Amino acid sequence: MSKPVLYQYSPSGNCYKVRWLFNELGVSYERVEVDLARGSAADASVLALLPFGRVPALKLGDGHWLAESNAILLHYAEGSSLLPPVGSLERARVSEWLFWEQYDHEPYIAVLRAWRKFFGVPAGREGEVDWRFERGEQALGRMESVLAGREFLAGAFSVADIALYAYTHVAADGGFDLGKYPAILAWFARCEARAKYLKLGA
Amino acid sequence: MSKPVLYQYSPSGNCYKVRWLFNELGVSYERVEVDLARGSAADASVLALLPFGRVPALKLGDGHWLAESNAILLHYAEGSSLLPPVGSLERARVSEWLFWEQYDHEPYIAVLRAWRKFFGVPAGREGEVDWRFERGEQALGRMESVLAGREFLAGAFSVADIALYAYTHVAADGGFDLGKYPAILAWFARCEARAKYLKLGA
Repeated sequence: MSKPVLYQYSPSGNCYKVRWLFNELGVSYERVEVDLARGSAADASVLALLPFGRVPALKLGDGHWLAESNAILLHYAEGSSLLPPVGSLERARVSEWLFWEQYDHEPYIAVLRAWRKFFGVPAGREGEVDWRFERGEQALGRMESVLAGREFLAGAFSVADIALYAYTHVAADGGFDLGKYPAILAWFARCEARAKYLKLGA
Repeated sequence: MSKPVLYQYSPSGNCYKVRWLFNELGVSYERVEVDLARGSAADASVLALLPFGRVPALKLGDGHWLAESNAILLHYAEGSSLLPPVGSLERARVSEWLFWEQYDHEPYIAVLRAWRKFFGVPAGREGEVDWRFERGEQALGRMESVLAGREFLAGAFSVADIALYAYTHVAADGGFDLGKYPAILAWFARCEARAKYLKLGA
């Protein structure tokens, strides 16, 4: 069976989650870059083929597709130390963080980064910047309070840390001042000390 | 060990997901109603005690809390017919739908319902109604195209159907015309024909 093919955009935190996980697990894969910022006709025609029309999308060796970054994390991490055993409270904590990331973190911290660094604020939506920033600060505040008392988000290092690190560590791109969050900064260092850590640009 | 206690607001689709799942599985639990629309001081003081300050929140018999509706679904459905086996492609499909629900469906279909039926549009955010409606229609369109060729979202009936049915079947409250989506309406009927189906108001 051929290697899985990751359709991805390198600056995207959602795509980065998958690359870092694959590095942790030693999964061999191929990459197809879809440059969302360039937005060429060729990129658009690739996007149109992907499930949900977005990256990351993973084409498995058997031809099936997987989408949704956090669903890909759960699927591949199963049975590894990065996902606690089925049925455990720790496993439920990982799930909580993954859903929280998509609902309470990404729409503020990643979206402001996308608008401010890559794509600009969509016309007519300038009024959303302030409340999205406020919600982003709330999300960072919650992470700070949890990480002040804990090494990693759900106990041991897990896919929850990969999912939350992805956009948090580049939150400054969205205008957030990470200097206000010392426990988050210390957690970054613990994540980056892992033997199989992968940098966003790698 | 005492029964789990579900802190919940009855009209909330996120809370309803948990009640319906517990009915499917025969989980015995207690309910504490937190009336978000009334918003009394008593309700606010209960909310302040809950993880993430929101419902649903589940206090387990051993005192631990679980939050995030879809994380609660995954935790309780484990080992039942409502969640495919660990490692299977069907399991990954269920995860995809659950994350998609929180990112691409709830912020449009549930939020417009909340604004239009319960809480009003927040001051200064009137400009969001149109694009949220458009995204909601995209979400319904995607479900329609999938359900035209399939009985349930991820193959057999699963927690993905519970999670998506919750806000889809009351999308009219947010101004969506469900008559445009015959495959979704037929799927509603299949869901409602289940022996352990639970109505939103029950």
